[in-house]
Amino acid sequence: METLTEEILTTVIKKRPAISHKGSFGRTVLIGGNTQYGGAIIMSAESCLKSGAGLVTVITAKENHAPLHARLPEVMVLDWHDQAAITASICNADVVLIGPGLGLTNHSLILLKLVLDLQEKQWLVIDGSAISLFAQEKLTLSHPHKTVFTPHQMEWQRLSGIPIVEQNELANRAFQKKLAASIVVKSHRTEIYTNKNIYRCPLGNSAMATGGTGDTLAGMIAGFLAQFPRKDATICAAVYLHSYIGDLLATENYVVLPTTISAALPHYMCYFSN
Amino acid sequence: METLTEEILTTVIKKRPAISHKGSFGRTVLIGGNTQYGGAIIMSAESCLKSGAGLVTVITAKENHAPLHARLPEVMVLDWHDQAAITASICNADVVLIGPGLGLTNHSLILLKLVLDLQEKQWLVIDGSAISLFAQEKLTLSHPHKTVFTPHQMEWQRLSGIPIVEQNELANRAFQKKLAASIVVKSHRTEIYTNKNIYRCPLGNSAMATGGTGDTLAGMIAGFLAQFPRKDATICAAVYLHSYIGDLLATENYVVLPTTISAALPHYMCYFSN
Amino acid sequence: METLTEEILTTVIKKRPAISHKGSFGRTVLIGGNTQYGGAIIMSAESCLKSGAGLVTVITAKENHAPLHARLPEVMVLDWHDQAAITASICNADVVLIGPGLGLTNHSLILLKLVLDLQEKQWLVIDGSAISLFAQEKLTLSHPHKTVFTPHQMEWQRLSGIPIVEQNELANRAFQKKLAASIVVKSHRTEIYTNKNIYRCPLGNSAMATGGTGDTLAGMIAGFLAQFPRKDATICAAVYLHSYIGDLLATENYVVLPTTISAALPHYMCYFSN
Amino acid sequence: METLTEEILTTVIKKRPAISHKGSFGRTVLIGGNTQYGGAIIMSAESCLKSGAGLVTVITAKENHAPLHARLPEVMVLDWHDQAAITASICNADVVLIGPGLGLTNHSLILLKLVLDLQEKQWLVIDGSAISLFAQEKLTLSHPHKTVFTPHQMEWQRLSGIPIVEQNELANRAFQKKLAASIVVKSHRTEIYTNKNIYRCPLGNSAMATGGTGDTLAGMIAGFLAQFPRKDATICAAVYLHSYIGDLLATENYVVLPTTISAALPHYMCYFSN
Repeated sequence: METLTEEILTTVIKKRPAISHKGSFGRTVLIGGNTQYGGAIIMSAESCLKSGAGLVTVITAKENHAPLHARLPEVMVLDWHDQAAITASICNADVVLIGPGLGLTNHSLILLKLVLDLQEKQWLVIDGSAISLFAQEKLTLSHPHKTVFTPHQMEWQRLSGIPIVEQNELANRAFQKKLAASIVVKSHRTEIYTNKNIYRCPLGNSAMATGGTGDTLAGMIAGFLAQFPRKDATICAAVYLHSYIGDLLATENYVVLPTTISAALPHYMCYFSN
Repeated sequence: METLTEEILTTVIKKRPAISHKGSFGRTVLIGGNTQYGGAIIMSAESCLKSGAGLVTVITAKENHAPLHARLPEVMVLDWHDQAAITASICNADVVLIGPGLGLTNHSLILLKLVLDLQEKQWLVIDGSAISLFAQEKLTLSHPHKTVFTPHQMEWQRLSGIPIVEQNELANRAFQKKLAASIVVKSHRTEIYTNKNIYRCPLGNSAMATGGTGDTLAGMIAGFLAQFPRKDATICAAVYLHSYIGDLLATENYVVLPTTISAALPHYMCYFSN
Repeated sequence: METLTEEILTTVIKKRPAISHKGSFGRTVLIGGNTQYGGAIIMSAESCLKSGAGLVTVITAKENHAPLHARLPEVMVLDWHDQAAITASICNADVVLIGPGLGLTNHSLILLKLVLDLQEKQWLVIDGSAISLFAQEKLTLSHPHKTVFTPHQMEWQRLSGIPIVEQNELANRAFQKKLAASIVVKSHRTEIYTNKNIYRCPLGNSAMATGGTGDTLAGMIAGFLAQFPRKDATICAAVYLHSYIGDLLATENYVVLPTTISAALPHYMCYFSN
Repeated sequence: METLTEEILTTVIKKRPAISHKGSFGRTVLIGGNTQYGGAIIMSAESCLKSGAGLVTVITAKENHAPLHARLPEVMVLDWHDQAAITASICNADVVLIGPGLGLTNHSLILLKLVLDLQEKQWLVIDGSAISLFAQEKLTLSHPHKTVFTPHQMEWQRLSGIPIVEQNELANRAFQKKLAASIVVKSHRTEIYTNKNIYRCPLGNSAMATGGTGDTLAGMIAGFLAQFPRKDATICAAVYLHSYIGDLLATENYVVLPTTISAALPHYMCYFSN
């Protein structure tokens, strides 16, 4: 297992080419946010946008459109019952994130299956309740090499069947091999299992232990994948930067609200870009 | 009567354990906000979240969901007519706050009775119109030792029957003994009556005399109870910090808006943690 | 005509009494905001609240409730079609402001007549379209000595019949005497005609010439009347401070958005209080 | 082709006359924002308002009213299905912008045709999907000398028929002459083709390559035309300042969110005014 260092940031976050346009930095589609957990997908959109994704579309329950636009007019929205528009949007995407605040209803499952069916060129990030649904319904991936799961330890237990107390490098690795997707196992020391290697993020703190931290990380991973070459280092850089900013903010804040991490992204990504 | 000092903050606000997750800092459920007083429950949620509660759910009228999420995507919401979801949410909670902007309708009463019926392991904070309803309907507590009332002087009159001019330590103490719950009697010098002792907060100022200050304090008490050992000191620390920040802000502001107190919470809680 | 100086601020803005509560600083009811001009009443509420009014209720079209609460959870709201609640709210008020974004429909007129009918102890501020309606319908005041009109020059023409080019001290004074109410004639050098005297504000600038500046002033006048002894000086102080802050902000801003004036109120009121 | 310099800003942005009112700085009407792209018209309104336009009205889908007012109470709104009000609003306008987030439906087309039919004294800015519709439906202008198109390169291809790779000064100029309107061809080095001259903006950077940058520029152009003499220099100044602020912000931000450009407008317009 390789411990990540600050070097991962300068490796991944490159100065943008002088000649570019918004399409150069990827089309990202985020799916989630039912009427109870609408804030989750808003937080994912916030971090995705502020990490530099060129075009961000959110597919969510109608009730979440107004608060999303009040915070983030830069983001586009689709009603999550408008299947034709959703399909077009996914087909056109470079990266799809599904799960934050998605819930566990039949409609959630329909959306997850649609995303899995449509995956071709798109990178796919599966988070939150989408992980639970994936496990429960024993779904399968057609493009595991372009898929990232971002479970916390309980969701990882559901997905892998490995009880939290038995989650260790060996056991996790074995199940990751079976899935063939990348896995970000979130905990106070997040680990990343890819097809090539295993990484450990040495940063992070307990001020970040609050609702929405995971949604924010998922949005960052999607945003990074939309802009940077889609390989292991990109996922690692998103995880590292999320904790790096969280650690800085925790020196002055008893609780680090996820949206304050997102607000700091443009600055720290500039600082580490080269 | 013991006068609180800054020491109460360092006694209660502890550095978080390195290994923790959002569940470690409590599940808090806040109930209130009709169509007229929706802002009250938004302000409670704001202070509860920013005081570090791990997971915050607001149960309120549908009209308040969008403005709540526009300000606080970190918070989850439930329609206050969805009784099944409400029951599940309360049963799963560590702390329940009911009252800010709740109103005095029959539906308000149904919700209050539901909360009282379901109280078992949960700490309960009863504020605002829930206090008036509790008094008017002569309701009773099954777990007074895990209940806090946060009346201002007129609400305390309604609850205790003691006219404002006759509210003094002796009279208040007598009625508190009868209730066996903790009482935070809010005034320009707030007093806290618990089963063990009586405390007086020496701080606070008239710039804080504006709508929402009490809702913000109630949210802080709930947030503190969700995180720290649930005893008298925790309630006292929330009261003290609320006035402490209010006094600091009043040196530069003619009126201290409650949301500015909430905004300062992560910083001052960090400063006093040890 | 007396030219106002900074002294008017220290005369009016007094340190608050140590023992007080939110009721001590007045109940203010603001009525306006149809579906097209909803922002107007939001801006009035923002300045009223931030000038220190203790309790602020906004009566407006349903569509404006969510954006109002997203900005100002401290404010209470009522649907402007709920006549029973409106009546109770007005009867309980210390100050009523009607007009910002009210529109000129039959419903606007019904609300204006209701306010005029209910005026007893309340101070009344009549602004914007309420002035046009008042003129057009030839309405009358029952308590002119507790009423303030805040017309811009065109609205003053409608109310007084004096064409803008003929609006001078003598002509304005004559019509003010007839009305027996106070008049704030807004222009680049606003003049205040009261029953006792005439005042001229020497401040203000063209960066403030943008939509919403008048709504913000009207909210400040209501907020000041709610807190300070209700006489001429109080109205003058609100006018002076509005322009004073506008002049300060204009040294660094090509346009001074009204909401930036409101944001600065708690600070400058603190600075001038004594 | 003339390369713009900072001088264009001091040439155009003049200190405001001391005696003025909100009407002195123009009535601007912005039309766009369907349910999917509502954020686009919000961003245009934000830049238009903050560039100093005196009165700004947005005509958009009902769903966008609440988030617009939550961000910008200074702006007025109309439902884009209320044709009578829309017509009155356009007839009364000094500048009309149509296109940001407008979409390509039949209703979008109806609105565009209405705007074209009603154009008389108004300056007209045609952006985004309105350009695509204009091209597709082979519409014509009755007042090309008071019209500005603001296409990105792909929209310019649709309008002019010139493929992106063949878009050069000569070809662009030829088609602009045919249209007789001003054209702002947006790219990493935006060019402006007017009836008199061709200008090139030497500023701009790839941190601005994100959704909403164009909507923000379109709102600025409308805001500038509302205030300053409506000629070539005014359009050029808006383009230059947009990139100037973008370049400054990019020194500290990996991505420059369009709303951060708008937030900086009052300050930089003040700095360059003389």
